[in-house]
Amino acid sequence: MSERVVIVGASAAGLAAAGRARRLRPDLELVILEEGAVLGPPICSAPHALGGELPELSELARWTPETLLDRRGIRAIVRAKATQIRPGQRRVLAQLPDGARAFGYDQLLIATGYRARELRLPGAELAGIHRAARFSDFSAMIAALPAAGAPAVVVGGGYIGLEVVEALARRGLNVTLFEKSAALLPLIDPELSPLIEAELAAHGITVRLSDTIVGFQGSPGGRLEGVHLRGSAPPLSCAMAVVAVGVEPETTLAQGAGVALGISGAIAVDARQRTSVPAVFAAGNCAETRLRITGQPAFVPLAPSAAQQGRVAGDNLAGRPSEFAGAVAAAVVRVFGLTVASAGLTRAQAEAAGFRVAATDIEARSTARGFGDRTVRVRLLTERGRGRLLGGQMIGDASCAHRINALVAALAAGFSASQLAELDLAYAPAYGPISDPLTVAARAAARGGSKSGGNGD
Amino acid sequence: MSERVVIVGASAAGLAAAGRARRLRPDLELVILEEGAVLGPPICSAPHALGGELPELSELARWTPETLLDRRGIRAIVRAKATQIRPGQRRVLAQLPDGARAFGYDQLLIATGYRARELRLPGAELAGIHRAARFSDFSAMIAALPAAGAPAVVVGGGYIGLEVVEALARRGLNVTLFEKSAALLPLIDPELSPLIEAELAAHGITVRLSDTIVGFQGSPGGRLEGVHLRGSAPPLSCAMAVVAVGVEPETTLAQGAGVALGISGAIAVDARQRTSVPAVFAAGNCAETRLRITGQPAFVPLAPSAAQQGRVAGDNLAGRPSEFAGAVAAAVVRVFGLTVASAGLTRAQAEAAGFRVAATDIEARSTARGFGDRTVRVRLLTERGRGRLLGGQMIGDASCAHRINALVAALAAGFSASQLAELDLAYAPAYGPISDPLTVAARAAARGGSKSGGNGD
Repeated sequence: MSERVVIVGASAAGLAAAGRARRLRPDLELVILEEGAVLGPPICSAPHALGGELPELSELARWTPETLLDRRGIRAIVRAKATQIRPGQRRVLAQLPDGARAFGYDQLLIATGYRARELRLPGAELAGIHRAARFSDFSAMIAALPAAGAPAVVVGGGYIGLEVVEALARRGLNVTLFEKSAALLPLIDPELSPLIEAELAAHGITVRLSDTIVGFQGSPGGRLEGVHLRGSAPPLSCAMAVVAVGVEPETTLAQGAGVALGISGAIAVDARQRTSVPAVFAAGNCAETRLRITGQPAFVPLAPSAAQQGRVAGDNLAGRPSEFAGAVAAAVVRVFGLTVASAGLTRAQAEAAGFRVAATDIEARSTARGFGDRTVRVRLLTERGRGRLLGGQMIGDASCAHRINALVAALAAGFSASQLAELDLAYAPAYGPISDPLTVAARAAARGGSKSGGNGD
Repeated sequence: MSERVVIVGASAAGLAAAGRARRLRPDLELVILEEGAVLGPPICSAPHALGGELPELSELARWTPETLLDRRGIRAIVRAKATQIRPGQRRVLAQLPDGARAFGYDQLLIATGYRARELRLPGAELAGIHRAARFSDFSAMIAALPAAGAPAVVVGGGYIGLEVVEALARRGLNVTLFEKSAALLPLIDPELSPLIEAELAAHGITVRLSDTIVGFQGSPGGRLEGVHLRGSAPPLSCAMAVVAVGVEPETTLAQGAGVALGISGAIAVDARQRTSVPAVFAAGNCAETRLRITGQPAFVPLAPSAAQQGRVAGDNLAGRPSEFAGAVAAAVVRVFGLTVASAGLTRAQAEAAGFRVAATDIEARSTARGFGDRTVRVRLLTERGRGRLLGGQMIGDASCAHRINALVAALAAGFSASQLAELDLAYAPAYGPISDPLTVAARAAARGGSKSGGNGD
């Protein structure tokens, strides 16, 4: 009988692990148990389907169970919710539409991803209130979209919240966003939040910072009709509410099996993605991610490092020792016409890790003269004294989405701001100025954090 | 009397040096002697003015002598052709419209850039034949553009030649391109040339590879009427011919002063941009550039490393020791709808430097599912055995212009293909797939140079 690997979750990590293990070991039996009804696409596409930019979510899936079996020899079972791992018996129990089933394994990979953080408020059970963490959440929102012009409320100004805000606005809804802290988007420093707020305001979004809702108001039939505000303000009527107050690692299954969690609350893994339980691996957003810059484990709910971890898990499941190199943790999000990109640590993260941080802010042209007048805001964070890069953020046109990646490589290399400034980044006037905005920022940071800058001489 | 620095050439290097020296030393007297009539814009914008995409060249200049003096305290003298350096007297002689003049200096920077390589053929003196290396060349072409529909010939398929081809096609001319070698664009490996050839053909350009002209045919009045082909073919009639058969360092002035050249034919400099002659510095495309990957000096006629050298020269002219870190040598060029980017060594350059080279070619999506079906071709060159990255090329949509810069940073860091593959580059579906084309290529290269690849699992 061939060796069997069971993977719980057709997440980016789960699929990457399966693909990698198959490539290395054609003889392995590979079984994926997926709780949802479809395999992929990445959840990151879901807000775009909600906004009507993309077709139905299920049409975007790269794989069906049939194609995955046919082309890769990987058996994926959908609507199979893994409920219990019995490490002593090397079995995982799952609930399928036709009943419970047990799957024996030689090795197991937990790739259960993240789940939505809950907001426990009065009325949370009303129809018309949605989460935004899984495909099924987005399918439900699409099915329940109110008519254009209707008021909607989004709670939470992280990147998922902002993507939902834009999607609902594209559908013609009248959106109010509540964010309990004083700034949007934790992946950027709060000083840059006003740029995002202005973009939202320009698109008709009402943004309420340092504010939140305290409950939901419903009809006698149990339908959402409004949200209750703090203090004595009258309720704000709305036809739909989306709660996007963050995500946390989905560790229920792992904890039930006695798998140890790390300090971040995600599953503790070593560099080979092994958990504390023999023959049980974990990868992706349910598992801890070692950050390259601090060397410390963290919860990093982003797809690229999840997929990288999945590949490492796939290597090791296939018997080829390999180690996860760590994550820079880079992200990019579109907020209407703005592209917001971040790499490495934010200032708050860097300070929490014990670094003495210098911040450098510049605004520089992203276009050559004659090719438009777009500018990009760049913030670089460096270690005081040594000048080592700790992180950075870019806000501006779509070029930021790819420009940030030179910084990702520089952070992974442990470069200082001077070393980044010395790179001869590719240039042609059709694509940008001689001095890339990142170069301009690095020069300013190398000089010691000037607060202004241009593209130089 | 204050210390005087004279800079010959308002090139990217000359202007960067002046700006940097001024910032460090407000007391220095800074004088730029510029042979042409205007200061900047970078010559790289000139083909876009030729094509009508940009306004007149002179309107694009960032600086005039008046603004440069007023805002930076830098005196620039245009139409001042430096003719001789007398190192013993620390004087440079220049020809100005109103006669010859001598400028004493304490330190001198030669930033004379490159010049067009000549094609010495019968009839080369006819009106209607142009070079494409200086502003004045492009101004002359713009002034002499034939009517739309007229036939034009471009000789030389390097990046300047290709930019001129596109510009003339945008003006409605019927363009034939001659390239004496079997492939276009020396900044990419010849195997990728067919992608460029197809793009040119799709835009109505006649491309004649492994072919050249042998002379020019003129009217009795001395106007170009056609070009003579090899063998017994009848002449090809044309109303304009542009010769873009490469550039070489402009070292006439330096050689006249006894300044030593290096093995590349450009001015030999140390890491502080000092030449063999005391108090004489050189920077930019007239000077040699140390390549990071080989450690060897080379002639690298690209603006970003020229500007970087200029900054280093500016530091040292101002008395602050600083060293040029070397160039990766990255370039990007637009060829109609294609973006062609390159970083590091080409295969031919790597082999000439003694490396055993492995080439990995992949084609991968540059867009997420649902966001279009664009693909990017990536070639990575690695050192056999060690896997160290030596160079790479990307051809596809405009994203290549910025995507290449993660490779620039990786090359500067001395990364292997595996290390590049391990980067968690920023991802959002609006901007690309989870696995960036560069990541896909790096994984294939790390596996050992597979000839196919997709965006993975």
